[in-house]
Amino acid sequence: MKEQKRKEVSVCLAGMGQAVARRELSFGTERRYRLAPGETLLDLAVCAAEEALENAETKIEEIDCIVCGMATPLQAIPCNGALIHERMAKGLDIPAMDINSTCTSFLSALDVMSCMIEIGRYEKVLIVSGDTASAALNPGQTESYELFSDAAAACVLSRGDGTGRILYSCQKTWSEGAHDTEIRGGGGLLPAFSMDVNNREDYYFDMKGSKILKLCAKKLPDFVSQCLEEAGVDRKEIRLVIPHQASRALDLIMPRLGFPKGTYMNRVSEWGNMISASVPYALCQAVREGTVQRGDLLLLLGTAAGLTANFMLLVY
Amino acid sequence: MKEQKRKEVSVCLAGMGQAVARRELSFGTERRYRLAPGETLLDLAVCAAEEALENAETKIEEIDCIVCGMATPLQAIPCNGALIHERMAKGLDIPAMDINSTCTSFLSALDVMSCMIEIGRYEKVLIVSGDTASAALNPGQTESYELFSDAAAACVLSRGDGTGRILYSCQKTWSEGAHDTEIRGGGGLLPAFSMDVNNREDYYFDMKGSKILKLCAKKLPDFVSQCLEEAGVDRKEIRLVIPHQASRALDLIMPRLGFPKGTYMNRVSEWGNMISASVPYALCQAVREGTVQRGDLLLLLGTAAGLTANFMLLVY
Repeated sequence: MKEQKRKEVSVCLAGMGQAVARRELSFGTERRYRLAPGETLLDLAVCAAEEALENAETKIEEIDCIVCGMATPLQAIPCNGALIHERMAKGLDIPAMDINSTCTSFLSALDVMSCMIEIGRYEKVLIVSGDTASAALNPGQTESYELFSDAAAACVLSRGDGTGRILYSCQKTWSEGAHDTEIRGGGGLLPAFSMDVNNREDYYFDMKGSKILKLCAKKLPDFVSQCLEEAGVDRKEIRLVIPHQASRALDLIMPRLGFPKGTYMNRVSEWGNMISASVPYALCQAVREGTVQRGDLLLLLGTAAGLTANFMLLVY
Repeated sequence: MKEQKRKEVSVCLAGMGQAVARRELSFGTERRYRLAPGETLLDLAVCAAEEALENAETKIEEIDCIVCGMATPLQAIPCNGALIHERMAKGLDIPAMDINSTCTSFLSALDVMSCMIEIGRYEKVLIVSGDTASAALNPGQTESYELFSDAAAACVLSRGDGTGRILYSCQKTWSEGAHDTEIRGGGGLLPAFSMDVNNREDYYFDMKGSKILKLCAKKLPDFVSQCLEEAGVDRKEIRLVIPHQASRALDLIMPRLGFPKGTYMNRVSEWGNMISASVPYALCQAVREGTVQRGDLLLLLGTAAGLTANFMLLVY
């Protein structure tokens, strides 16, 4: 692994928020949430962002940048950040942008924006994640159709207060997996207007579960070990691992990464895979439930279509 | 304007590249370029990126992060960065992600990644921009249908060599303009599957030209003056302004910002609006033509759907 030089970055997750779609579904013992009629992902995103601001005791006027760490667009144009801005910051001139690494978009946004804060460019950044999974689920592909939930989560990231900091952050992409998780249609390569009766499948979410698992099993153990080594942190020092709630295979993968059951959060049966909202939603929930306290060392860990993996050691 | 604290960032545009679609069209005296059958934006993006690497005398193995600063996705999932990675870096573990602020995505990516380099996280970043404008142009809206070209541009951004640096960078979003430039469909709010005979127009690019002009005329003069003041730079010190080649209205807007004809590039009739590739394509062209030399102070200036504006003073 090529070394990514880094130093500790002094930032604080000053407040978090979460919102889940209203329509509850059950697949066997698994609970999922999908948008109800009239409800949109934008509504959920704004709701989560407002809660994050409230918990951070921060007004939108104090925010220096609005970043959507989302895997999918709300509209093809403009970027999601501008649409969140319209609902929350109309009349203000806060810059808005999107950062996308699919399922780990929140972690990429957190990583990048923590550097912007460290360098003194911004003081407070609002990061909002969430996706409309239900817009492209294929009823014919049970494995993915029954996996996802529509949800949003957000955080106010601010300059460190002495406690909060990011000890180490690393992202890798192995494009051998670029087509293991995809929606082939809907972009420039196969535009919306090209959809016909023969290629409708290409516009659905398509997940090759066993291929992804195989690639993760091949890449992640070394990735995690090398990150820990580079960070100089032992697994035992970590209070809680918050992994992307990718699928029920979490209990297969995590022990192979050296994290036995009980050391990481697994709520897949409770709320499924929330795409980009998955990690921040789980973190927000852990804070809400009191499992995570200020000063705790957390590992935020995720895989994304790409195949991309993010590893972040964070003192909450 | 809320002050964005900033310091000079020592980075160098080590090499640039550009590629334009093969199919040439004429609308009166205006020349435009659109993808030819079998040609894709991914092809153009890879071509521009390879040229940038070559000009920077850099191998892909030396790149620490691949960032697509693009307004539109190639596929709905995964992110564009992963698809570029697959074509250029398969077998390597370089992280890949997208940064999107629509037409100014290149400037946002350059801004954000220069901070990642300044902080020591990365040494060399490949930034690739470009969009498939032709995928969503509405033949019924002449103003936009005849404006855009399909193209790509790229740069290798590396730690400063003593000459190159970003003196000042600022981004603002005024979401009063969120719906002046948009493609309403194709994302989570109006998915590809919801297209029918009654709402096809919503999946086309839709530009309210006179509304955008009015908002730009209202916001940009103060924005540009305040940025120059904050940067402590006089217009006369700037060797060349490279604006987003938004439309033929460039010659109306630029003088109102204090930049008379001859102080800025205008190639709109030659190649049109290339969306996110617009600014880097023009910069690459200016370098190629010898208009821009190492050590020159440039102003990269752009507006984007949002309404977003980016202002960057760069010593090339």
